[in-house]
Amino acid sequence: MAILGTAAVEVLIPVAALIGIAFAMLQWYVVAKVPVPSHAGEGSGGGGEGSKQGRDVRGEEEEGEEDGMDYLLVEALCAEIQRAISIGATSFLLTEYKYLAAFTAAFAAVIFVFLGSAERFSARPSPCAYDPSRECRPALANAAFSAVAFLLGAATSVLSGYLGMRVATFANARTVLEARHGVGRAFAAAFRSGTAMGFLLASSALLVLYAAVNLFGLYYGDDWGGLYESITRVPSPCSAASAAASTPRPLTSAPTSSARSSATSPRTTLATPRMMVAHNVIADNVGDNVGDIAGMGLDLFGSYAESSCAALFVASICSFGAEHDLTAMMYPLLISAVGLLVCAITTVVATDVTEVKESDEVGPALKRQILISPPHLFICVSAGLWAGLVIGYVTEYFTSNAYGPVQAVARSCRTGAATNVIFGLAVGYKSVIVPILAIAAAIYASFRLAATYGIALEALGMLSTIAKGLSIDAYGPISDNAGGIAEMAGMPRRVREPTDALDAAGNTTAAIGKGFAIGSAALVSLALFGAYVSRAGIMAVDVLSPRVFVGLLVGAMLPYWFSAMMMRSVGSAALRMVEEVRRQFDTIPGLAVPDYATCVRISTDASLKKMMAPGALVMLSPLVAGTLFGVETLAGLLAGALVSGVQVAISASNSGGAWDNAKKYIEAGMSEEARSLGPQGSKAHKAAVIGDTIGDPLKDTSGPSLNILIKLMAVESLVFAPFFAAHGGIIFDHL
Amino acid sequence: MAILGTAAVEVLIPVAALIGIAFAMLQWYVVAKVPVPSHAGEGSGGGGEGSKQGRDVRGEEEEGEEDGMDYLLVEALCAEIQRAISIGATSFLLTEYKYLAAFTAAFAAVIFVFLGSAERFSARPSPCAYDPSRECRPALANAAFSAVAFLLGAATSVLSGYLGMRVATFANARTVLEARHGVGRAFAAAFRSGTAMGFLLASSALLVLYAAVNLFGLYYGDDWGGLYESITRVPSPCSAASAAASTPRPLTSAPTSSARSSATSPRTTLATPRMMVAHNVIADNVGDNVGDIAGMGLDLFGSYAESSCAALFVASICSFGAEHDLTAMMYPLLISAVGLLVCAITTVVATDVTEVKESDEVGPALKRQILISPPHLFICVSAGLWAGLVIGYVTEYFTSNAYGPVQAVARSCRTGAATNVIFGLAVGYKSVIVPILAIAAAIYASFRLAATYGIALEALGMLSTIAKGLSIDAYGPISDNAGGIAEMAGMPRRVREPTDALDAAGNTTAAIGKGFAIGSAALVSLALFGAYVSRAGIMAVDVLSPRVFVGLLVGAMLPYWFSAMMMRSVGSAALRMVEEVRRQFDTIPGLAVPDYATCVRISTDASLKKMMAPGALVMLSPLVAGTLFGVETLAGLLAGALVSGVQVAISASNSGGAWDNAKKYIEAGMSEEARSLGPQGSKAHKAAVIGDTIGDPLKDTSGPSLNILIKLMAVESLVFAPFFAAHGGIIFDHL
Repeated sequence: MAILGTAAVEVLIPVAALIGIAFAMLQWYVVAKVPVPSHAGEGSGGGGEGSKQGRDVRGEEEEGEEDGMDYLLVEALCAEIQRAISIGATSFLLTEYKYLAAFTAAFAAVIFVFLGSAERFSARPSPCAYDPSRECRPALANAAFSAVAFLLGAATSVLSGYLGMRVATFANARTVLEARHGVGRAFAAAFRSGTAMGFLLASSALLVLYAAVNLFGLYYGDDWGGLYESITRVPSPCSAASAAASTPRPLTSAPTSSARSSATSPRTTLATPRMMVAHNVIADNVGDNVGDIAGMGLDLFGSYAESSCAALFVASICSFGAEHDLTAMMYPLLISAVGLLVCAITTVVATDVTEVKESDEVGPALKRQILISPPHLFICVSAGLWAGLVIGYVTEYFTSNAYGPVQAVARSCRTGAATNVIFGLAVGYKSVIVPILAIAAAIYASFRLAATYGIALEALGMLSTIAKGLSIDAYGPISDNAGGIAEMAGMPRRVREPTDALDAAGNTTAAIGKGFAIGSAALVSLALFGAYVSRAGIMAVDVLSPRVFVGLLVGAMLPYWFSAMMMRSVGSAALRMVEEVRRQFDTIPGLAVPDYATCVRISTDASLKKMMAPGALVMLSPLVAGTLFGVETLAGLLAGALVSGVQVAISASNSGGAWDNAKKYIEAGMSEEARSLGPQGSKAHKAAVIGDTIGDPLKDTSGPSLNILIKLMAVESLVFAPFFAAHGGIIFDHL
Repeated sequence: MAILGTAAVEVLIPVAALIGIAFAMLQWYVVAKVPVPSHAGEGSGGGGEGSKQGRDVRGEEEEGEEDGMDYLLVEALCAEIQRAISIGATSFLLTEYKYLAAFTAAFAAVIFVFLGSAERFSARPSPCAYDPSRECRPALANAAFSAVAFLLGAATSVLSGYLGMRVATFANARTVLEARHGVGRAFAAAFRSGTAMGFLLASSALLVLYAAVNLFGLYYGDDWGGLYESITRVPSPCSAASAAASTPRPLTSAPTSSARSSATSPRTTLATPRMMVAHNVIADNVGDNVGDIAGMGLDLFGSYAESSCAALFVASICSFGAEHDLTAMMYPLLISAVGLLVCAITTVVATDVTEVKESDEVGPALKRQILISPPHLFICVSAGLWAGLVIGYVTEYFTSNAYGPVQAVARSCRTGAATNVIFGLAVGYKSVIVPILAIAAAIYASFRLAATYGIALEALGMLSTIAKGLSIDAYGPISDNAGGIAEMAGMPRRVREPTDALDAAGNTTAAIGKGFAIGSAALVSLALFGAYVSRAGIMAVDVLSPRVFVGLLVGAMLPYWFSAMMMRSVGSAALRMVEEVRRQFDTIPGLAVPDYATCVRISTDASLKKMMAPGALVMLSPLVAGTLFGVETLAGLLAGALVSGVQVAISASNSGGAWDNAKKYIEAGMSEEARSLGPQGSKAHKAAVIGDTIGDPLKDTSGPSLNILIKLMAVESLVFAPFFAAHGGIIFDHL
């Protein structure tokens, strides 16, 4: 990489980041030109004039329209619904951020105290890690900078989550309105909005890391070890924030499913099931926006920041880090910068060069977007990327209703809910095999080539297309919500068909996105684990040492404990919500306009309060293990949680996905067999609905949050490694 | 232990084993005195005279009876049902043994070839493992003796499974008939039969091991390393046999549940649901006998043999094994011998000193049996025993309907099957926490004290009460089947009450038994793992070595792969069986006497054929990993499978148990709340039935067979360790 001079590196990274941000703004601007009635306009770009223009468009439309709908009313309804979703999502995030602020402040203090105490708050320079004969910055400075880096990370993730959510809610109604002009324009609107969000987040992460490295560097000078050690504190709040944000989704979707199944049942005793569905769809859409955008988006974003930091940190303590060549030290950020530029170019191909005209072109167009990016990275970090693709495609195979597994699950509904659940669980278990083999092969290859640094680069490789990944990830809920809004606004079938097509394509790519999320989480955790082991000064993590084995066994248990907490929380919160909705309909006669606010408030309260216990489990486990049982037990704990958590995460996600799509397969009546199982309300369909409801907390909460569990534990261990190395293992030392 | 001279050791072990066998025969003789109409008599003890005596008893009874039942007919019906169960179970075992014989012969050949080739079939003496300056027996002799030991183990397990099953079916009808005289006599009959089986198996295992050590010792002389290495081949076929035997249970119980749920549904379209229930109960009882007795019994039996062998082997290669003191070398067998004698004494207390008079005394009496045995072992191996008890009691807490968790699961049925499944899964996940902490603490304690040998002794400690464990384990299905027979024979409520009480108590103790089975499997596997690492000459199993980490990750995946296969197999076989039964009732009008034979044949075929693939997975994984990727990857694989498999096994068993008992809780109407959820056929009850049906394959197949997976992989790795050490790692060596 010596072909790039220092100056070029210093320029290339920020320029790439700024180009990314400009690109995001451009996409947003294009989407904003779609008019939405003024009182719901987000005030940025669309506004009054656009609204007028919109009416013109509608005027032309109405000629070709035979259903005689009042388009003014429908448009207003869309805007109203969008406003409700936006208010709900904003209120959720604001409440979450209040909690997060308290947590961040407390945890920054803990970081400062623990790291400072590792060397008794010494303000004297200490010997360097890579070369003990030289002097590096004092531990106290490291502690202070670590706390600052942590706060910086928290601020970044708060801002990113909020912006992402705004973009998504902003895009929902516009996608619906564009759907009136055909699937091509609807696709462009949804995809551009996703792109705006993806590039915004990816670029700002790169910019923040770059700025932090340069600002902190002013103090650290040549002490790259200390510098990058502080920098590793940046990403941890992202994971914490995304964990909290990923919870409302199943919480809102469970009651929706149950309301839907009541609505389709001919003998429901509920007063107005259709309104109850509408009622819940709002909450569901809020959940999607918060969960998928601020939740899963931040999860990927966190992985990306963590793998960058892990690579930087490992580079600084590895042998070739001692040379302190700027280009080499910045190599991980360079990969991201180049990835960002490549993604920008390939995106232009999707939005401006090619055009989607028919519904069945949407899926291939999206998949092309995923495939088009790899080539440039072939040379450096392809293993991770290919592993990610393999995981993604296997995930699709096991969760799409175009293939055998989901169809077998659907078929098993014929004999009732029990066989459906058994087959779904089996599909989830089976879907673990190939991804694990792919991850194992990728790990072996890069581990052999460049040890921990190889793993970190591999994770970065998997995430080098992060901008694209985030775009496609955001595209999913945008189209999903567009479909929901179209349904609620009573749009004609002709408008709903395009949104349904967008949604179906989004489900498949969401599966691929989840594959990347899980795969990268595994690699990032391993890289962080390697960094932790180096930093804690452990020579070998020998399974046959009792300390390590005990850690391994207990670590493998943590994902179960964590999942149990998550599932119970979601289960009981969903119960409360169903009861609240029923109560409203029972006690308030003639309730016409659903009371969205209560549903959203229940889910906000429940998700944030119920997440305290699992959050504490994740945050405290490494602290307790490290402090009481020492660095070796903690190493075992991390390894155990990693190897067991990945399996639980993949199987939970895919079982949930399989049940979801088995239900959709029956509902859509896509084949002779599917029609024989249907229609909605048939015995088989009811069994499928039960499976789908069970799958929601598995695929939307347990699965994704386990990614965060393994990453957060690893990054936290790395953060506190100096403290554990100095003072850890109180109990075992006294036995 | 030097207080016991060589002669005393040589005498104590076989005498204890013979006393155990005599004790078993005595118990059997007492049970056999209960008369059953002659044509169903097993020909051993009961017979004609007893039958006459039985009629006298019945004569007395009829006076106090007001329901005017024809007891002659009922007795004949009991005998008929017992005969059907016995024929079904025998036919299952015979078919299984045919497959097993082929497998055993093939695998013995594989063992001989692989181990022989490790040193190129050299017939020259090789240097000893513990002291390379001395000469030990040639590798070829080790290979030959290993193959012989393997065949010996297969013969023992076949004989034990068969005898156990005979005792159990022999006892079923007798327990029912005794129930007419009150719960005390019924309990005595069931418990004595269980005891007969437990002591028979435990004693014969001890005797076989002792005989093998002495016979092989004639050739090996002072070469204890070679001797005990060969001996370690004995237990592996037990595990294989128990794996095959544990499958029919869920296979037969799933259609039974489904038939039962059809029967309770008011709108069933089945012709004669009650007969269909009866029909399936036969198959279910066959499944119980084969699965619980020949399956789980052999599982514990295998653990016991494996932990003995692991302890013997580790003793022979550890430092103090080099002294070759006979008492020290025989210490593991001594523990078992003493345990057997202590169990015999405590059993006498249960059957002859105290007496059970009321239904609610049954549970406490059984639990006392579990608790009464520990004290004598406090000194040497108590950690394992206490860990086993902790696991057992936690299992009981999470699966008994007397406590909160199962009641919460039952309550969740109010909102449908989906919440029931979610809560049940969460309970299973949560139930993993304490057992894992207990196992971890126990492992740490003994590992620190005596490394791998400590673990092996700890496992033995957990299993020192194996005779008692097997007795109580056999007691469960005996009382369960007695209840089933009483129901089918149309016995009056007064007779069925005692059998129900026995059954309820049996469920709780079965949970404790499962706790011991899982805990001991984990410890045994770890001990075998330690032995394998020593034998393969691995210095450290470092998680941060890519070879080990890859093994760890893939190993943690194997339990999922295996479970997926098991669940799918069971699911599809159960589907076929339900359809077959429906077909019979649809196509054969007026079918009165159910065609048991077809159901049993379907389940036999399905269980054995469908178990080929998972069996191959277990047997081939270590071979493939060791041969292609080498001893370090295999070490990682074993550690990964162990730490992940234990979690899956515990959570699957306990989720299943919780669903099962939540259903029973609603059915029994044990509290105000339970009554509000019931009665049978209510919406909540239907949801509970779905959970129960899902739980069957989890708790009866996946859970228990995972014990076998982790043990079998570890023992197989140990068997082939010399070969892998010499020739393993083909692929990695060429990369």
